[in-house]
Amino acid sequence: MDEVPGSVGTSASFALRLGQTIFSSASLLFMSLGVEFYSYTAFCFLVTIMGLVIPWSFTLAMVDGYSVLVKCPLRQSGILLLIVVGDWVLSILTLAAACSTASVVDLLLHAEGSFCRQKFCTRYQISAAMAFLSWFLSMASSVFNLWLLPSL
Amino acid sequence: MDEVPGSVGTSASFALRLGQTIFSSASLLFMSLGVEFYSYTAFCFLVTIMGLVIPWSFTLAMVDGYSVLVKCPLRQSGILLLIVVGDWVLSILTLAAACSTASVVDLLLHAEGSFCRQKFCTRYQISAAMAFLSWFLSMASSVFNLWLLPSL
Repeated sequence: MDEVPGSVGTSASFALRLGQTIFSSASLLFMSLGVEFYSYTAFCFLVTIMGLVIPWSFTLAMVDGYSVLVKCPLRQSGILLLIVVGDWVLSILTLAAACSTASVVDLLLHAEGSFCRQKFCTRYQISAAMAFLSWFLSMASSVFNLWLLPSL
Repeated sequence: MDEVPGSVGTSASFALRLGQTIFSSASLLFMSLGVEFYSYTAFCFLVTIMGLVIPWSFTLAMVDGYSVLVKCPLRQSGILLLIVVGDWVLSILTLAAACSTASVVDLLLHAEGSFCRQKFCTRYQISAAMAFLSWFLSMASSVFNLWLLPSL
């Protein structure tokens, strides 16, 4: 059985999952430590999705870390299919949330009335950027695992 | 060789492509027949992406229609890979544009100052909904063709 780098149970996958966890946590923190996020639908959506992504990525990071330590990769097609579908759905939702946040921040920055104080807007922008990075890593995980799926 | 319903050169694929063309054209028309779309980045993004999706879907609809008529489906893995990747990239961009538009419209509707006249906002909403439908069909095309790819 070929070892696909980045699929479940490899150290590359562990790194990807760790990156997802870190970026989503950063996105959530930058967004929610401001006090005004709940007045915009897009920001609430981002917080909700990040609240889903963080436990998912963290759990899979633990699984990968365990697999690497005991040198016994997970190779059951049912579980792998579940992981691929979960990653895929979450990455679509992350992309949607990141795009919504980015476009709302852009609108707030360029609106005629001064809607957001400069400090908050920068934090929203950083949050959206972190969400995009998290999306990219999540999509990479999904593709690597999809690649492995037919060989099981 | 198995015939995957919805893959290139079948009548289901022709229907999918026709749906994409119709929904993206509707999205573009609802957005651009209003006069104010160029003042919001998200709306300009939607118009740009729809301008890419319409010719892509229309061309592939023509190819599918021709394949169905001459009963000679296209089965070259290089071309199929190109179509899968193109569909995938365009569906991600369509999703991003639809989410951005939807969140900006939501913000405009609920902003304190009356930013958009009611008539325009409804049209923007319809445009975003059409873009979501176009994304869904585009994603379906991509998945069906990806399914066919390993068998070539």
